[in-house]
Amino acid sequence: MEKPAVSAYPIHELLKRRWSPLAFSGRMVEPEKLQSLFEAARWAPSCFNEQPWNFVVCTRDSPEDHERLVSCLSEGNLPWARTAPVLMLSVARRTFTRNGNPNRHALHDVGLAVENLILQAMALDLFVHQMGGFDAAKARTLFGIPDDHEPVAAIALGYPGDPEQLPPPLREREMAPRQRKPLDQFVFGGRWGQGASALGRHYGGTQT
Amino acid sequence: MEKPAVSAYPIHELLKRRWSPLAFSGRMVEPEKLQSLFEAARWAPSCFNEQPWNFVVCTRDSPEDHERLVSCLSEGNLPWARTAPVLMLSVARRTFTRNGNPNRHALHDVGLAVENLILQAMALDLFVHQMGGFDAAKARTLFGIPDDHEPVAAIALGYPGDPEQLPPPLREREMAPRQRKPLDQFVFGGRWGQGASALGRHYGGTQT
Repeated sequence: MEKPAVSAYPIHELLKRRWSPLAFSGRMVEPEKLQSLFEAARWAPSCFNEQPWNFVVCTRDSPEDHERLVSCLSEGNLPWARTAPVLMLSVARRTFTRNGNPNRHALHDVGLAVENLILQAMALDLFVHQMGGFDAAKARTLFGIPDDHEPVAAIALGYPGDPEQLPPPLREREMAPRQRKPLDQFVFGGRWGQGASALGRHYGGTQT
Repeated sequence: MEKPAVSAYPIHELLKRRWSPLAFSGRMVEPEKLQSLFEAARWAPSCFNEQPWNFVVCTRDSPEDHERLVSCLSEGNLPWARTAPVLMLSVARRTFTRNGNPNRHALHDVGLAVENLILQAMALDLFVHQMGGFDAAKARTLFGIPDDHEPVAAIALGYPGDPEQLPPPLREREMAPRQRKPLDQFVFGGRWGQGASALGRHYGGTQT
């Protein structure tokens, strides 16, 4: 299933096609595609080129690992996420390697890298759905994540599945239109809350 | 100037071409291109679809605004960043709109949106260079950023310039090879620090 962004202004096809489905196929993701996904993350920019992103990957090919990650997910994510053949944790190093100081941009920079990974996935017809709903403390223990690192998100990855495989309430969510704030609610010019004339006079876009 | 990633595994052309130059042309960015950039950010995923990203845009067409943002930059960024025709702040809302609770993923999700913006820029032959080096407290005051929001990064945007326009030490930095950790230092399988067999046996990649 495809569910392209109803964009008010033209955007690149990869960005337009990207979305976070709930229905995943059980089909395993090829090793060479996984290589490309992490290579994409690798080349993201970061503050002082710290590259604070890390990933712990658990696939169905190692059922114990996969089940260990499933055991960290919140109940609401279980019915759909356990179907994904690849589950991951994104993990941020909270300090700079060079001097041990706190890195205020650690989570932000993990976000930059993960979006690269998501778009590389899209280029290979793979889909990603990130979850905030997981037990980070449990994940830290079960996966041996060091103290100066923070588990950020649980990530489901795979080929798209059939929405019919979802229980009815999730199927409805899967089919619902995508919603975003219009541009003029988050792009300001010169001062917070002011219209951004650099974008032209009417740049709000429709509420889609 | 182009400086493509020396990738160990194939990645999409947009991701390969993206980099953060220091030399920007003075040429103004067209309003319709700015619209597409923020539209790209708009369609990023976020925790509970909170969309915590915000942007304050200052262009050379409004010299007072542009200079106000320049005044927040750290000294090291001044010699190159003030040339960029568009300067911005990315700003994260730290709380969920629906209940006021802290949003642990706010900065991360701003990162997701900013990477979309950067790649849409790349698709339009525009380049972005983010800076952690700016006075966030001063920016909060000068741009009227509300208490529950956090200035994340200063962002320079524009068409590429000539490296010859840079002072010698920056010119050297501009021409230096790009460096990244190999994959096996940040991608683990099943447990922190373990090799990820799902990527195949040899996935470290070269240190480039």
